[in-house]
Amino acid sequence: MSIRRTTVKAALESPSPCPEIRVMGWVRTRRDAKGFSFLELNDGSCLGNLQVIIDDTAEGADLVKALGVGASVAVTGELVASPGKGQRYEVRAASVSLLGAADPETYPLQKKRHSDEFLRTIAHLRPRTNKYGAMLRIRAALAHGIHDYFAKEGFALVHTPVITGSDCEGAGEMFRVTTLGPEAAALPVAERLSQDFFGKEAMLTVSGQLSAEPLACALGRVYTFGPTFRAEHSDTSRHAAEFWMLEPEMAFADLEDNMNLAESLVTHLVRLVLAECAEDFGLFAKFVDPTLPATLENLLAEPFVRLPYVEAVDILTSCKKAFQYPVAFGADLQSEHERYLAEEHFKRPVIVYDYPKDIKAFYMRQNDDGKTVGAMDVLVPGIGELVGGSAREERLDRLEARIAELGLPLEAYWWYLDTRRFGTVPHAGFGLGFERLVMLVTGVTNIRDVMAFPRTWRHLEF
Amino acid sequence: MSIRRTTVKAALESPSPCPEIRVMGWVRTRRDAKGFSFLELNDGSCLGNLQVIIDDTAEGADLVKALGVGASVAVTGELVASPGKGQRYEVRAASVSLLGAADPETYPLQKKRHSDEFLRTIAHLRPRTNKYGAMLRIRAALAHGIHDYFAKEGFALVHTPVITGSDCEGAGEMFRVTTLGPEAAALPVAERLSQDFFGKEAMLTVSGQLSAEPLACALGRVYTFGPTFRAEHSDTSRHAAEFWMLEPEMAFADLEDNMNLAESLVTHLVRLVLAECAEDFGLFAKFVDPTLPATLENLLAEPFVRLPYVEAVDILTSCKKAFQYPVAFGADLQSEHERYLAEEHFKRPVIVYDYPKDIKAFYMRQNDDGKTVGAMDVLVPGIGELVGGSAREERLDRLEARIAELGLPLEAYWWYLDTRRFGTVPHAGFGLGFERLVMLVTGVTNIRDVMAFPRTWRHLEF
Repeated sequence: MSIRRTTVKAALESPSPCPEIRVMGWVRTRRDAKGFSFLELNDGSCLGNLQVIIDDTAEGADLVKALGVGASVAVTGELVASPGKGQRYEVRAASVSLLGAADPETYPLQKKRHSDEFLRTIAHLRPRTNKYGAMLRIRAALAHGIHDYFAKEGFALVHTPVITGSDCEGAGEMFRVTTLGPEAAALPVAERLSQDFFGKEAMLTVSGQLSAEPLACALGRVYTFGPTFRAEHSDTSRHAAEFWMLEPEMAFADLEDNMNLAESLVTHLVRLVLAECAEDFGLFAKFVDPTLPATLENLLAEPFVRLPYVEAVDILTSCKKAFQYPVAFGADLQSEHERYLAEEHFKRPVIVYDYPKDIKAFYMRQNDDGKTVGAMDVLVPGIGELVGGSAREERLDRLEARIAELGLPLEAYWWYLDTRRFGTVPHAGFGLGFERLVMLVTGVTNIRDVMAFPRTWRHLEF
Repeated sequence: MSIRRTTVKAALESPSPCPEIRVMGWVRTRRDAKGFSFLELNDGSCLGNLQVIIDDTAEGADLVKALGVGASVAVTGELVASPGKGQRYEVRAASVSLLGAADPETYPLQKKRHSDEFLRTIAHLRPRTNKYGAMLRIRAALAHGIHDYFAKEGFALVHTPVITGSDCEGAGEMFRVTTLGPEAAALPVAERLSQDFFGKEAMLTVSGQLSAEPLACALGRVYTFGPTFRAEHSDTSRHAAEFWMLEPEMAFADLEDNMNLAESLVTHLVRLVLAECAEDFGLFAKFVDPTLPATLENLLAEPFVRLPYVEAVDILTSCKKAFQYPVAFGADLQSEHERYLAEEHFKRPVIVYDYPKDIKAFYMRQNDDGKTVGAMDVLVPGIGELVGGSAREERLDRLEARIAELGLPLEAYWWYLDTRRFGTVPHAGFGLGFERLVMLVTGVTNIRDVMAFPRTWRHLEF
């Protein structure tokens, strides 16, 4: 027999009162008065609680006075207009039954403020708090908004592999994947590899791009959205070992199309959060970062600045700011520079493009100046780099020359080069770090607090 | 300057002719006649090609006679009603330019039928064929349909981690994840682990369920949809080392709710393919499996059969079929049994439920008979098991007893057990193998042919 219930969200948004309703959820607070008790009930369907009033004569009322914060209950009663402020409806209980108790002596989420650091140690329970519940709902809304956006724009979602051969991707520290135990290390390399699952070295991907390009060069417009991995030992508030990355790739597109797509996508998603997640967003605007509404409205107010790298360097070298890292043509922009441009100089998002080729990846399209490539980074206030992308080098001769110049193993790229060998087309794409997007719209400053179960250097709990 | 183009799909679906249109794509065929040539142009936006007619006097016409299959071109011309059958419009080219040639001597996708086995060796190019392009578009439509379905049903998408501690999941062969080279094997275990990235053993997840449960026990209804991994050395047509799994998890739900959700989801997605992917689906119905339309219409015609495991055993033991594996209460159903039930006995989908507890996982809800658990598998014709799920044991004492009974390390489950310790609620969920769903709706019989870049035992190309 199925379990019948109305969600708290549906009850609060009900078009009319209802003579009988059944709700289930967790007790957020209990308040007792003479002859009756109040429960604030939350079931995760929305930030708001449903107030339940239990007269001492209601069925199960004897249980209620023992209910602790976090206990789960089922309530049947009448949904009536609430005389209290801040809520349209409340429930007058006919009966209450206990689903699961929560001992106040041991349940960690008693009604008080907990530090983010403490809540990370109970990542399995923190989604029951207002803040982490709201974060997860906003995260889900953003993910769904991404899928909707790309479907409407004619992009096919593709699933690029997580396990990858080690030869191609190059950038960043990678995790190795194996089915062998440590004892296999005693074997000669060739024999060890032949005994391993794939018969060769296997790694966790740092980007789906190289797989997405051949798919874009067949389907036209594709995107991947999946987990990616960095084995960097950096213990910062912005890096996780496992994170989700969105990577659209477009055939028949150049760097300007790429910038247009990134700007359109980011502004669309910010608008979506403001419009569709107003209640959850309000929590972050109120308790996490009061400047958040202004920051996001400002992001939407005007087009993003588009700034060639050389002009960015001019601004950074001629400004009065003392940077930790020096700036000159040929140097990669550091976080401090990116944030200066977005937060202080322009005070809004900036797309820096045409970076020096020597600091960018081999596959980026070479500009005619011989010095720069068609790369672009979207820098946003509070975050720094949100998006990194480029036009891809579609000319076989130039791409092969660049691979050789960098001493990369040409033969490992045979299939990647085939997309340039046969019917090559101009194409472009970018990567957007999904957690950074969540940080942007919530004001949360630590990546560990915008993921359900973060994986970072030396942290693999839950 | 951005690249302006109309997609082939938009051109073919244009509400009216158009005096000037610019399209780009790959040449599928070229046919020359006296004074002009025909190109069939495809850009991946849909299965259909756009016919382009190039008069010998058009700009760039001299290039056209040298265009091979697979070459990419840009065409500007007039979109006019087509006198030919099977297409509403064609383009009369004013100019044609070559984007990228494809040498007929070396381009592998000449116009002829290629075997699936051969196409697997060029997985980077096979999306340019009709069949694999159609498969990838259907795959994308199904993925988007999943996200839409769950959003409408009030489920939040959650991202559960791919890298997991080794202690909990148990089932199946797992891949190990490490940043150490083989030389670390010489170290004592404790020292080796302390030097590794996470300071402990790390594996690739086989299921997001254990992470999804605490999230459902906070947000109410959640789902994960991401890559999962099995390091099994089985070289079958149904198993891949990396595959995508959809796992919804519902608080305040029991086994019947779970069956209802699975049936509603599967039928919704089959309807979606028939309604929204008619052109691509038509290819599979015509060339891959002519029984496909009837199979899917039949799946939608009546509710799924719901059959207790004991009755399934009765049917299997009393039928005349000679099975390779014997059937009796307590034996797990093999693929041959599952397919007999769905394909021969009922000739439609069957949900088998209440399996013996000894063949099912520790977390499944124990029934009052002491012998069975609230497990369910959805078996469909042609595939066998498409969905496997259960009501979860929400009673702390019974769950702890079962973990102890099975000799599993109780302390590793501390956080999982907390969801039962504090405000426990009845909950249920299932896993649906996404590639099996793609196989169901396309009639493709090998899992390697419903993924862009399959990873299987000893195969890690691309």
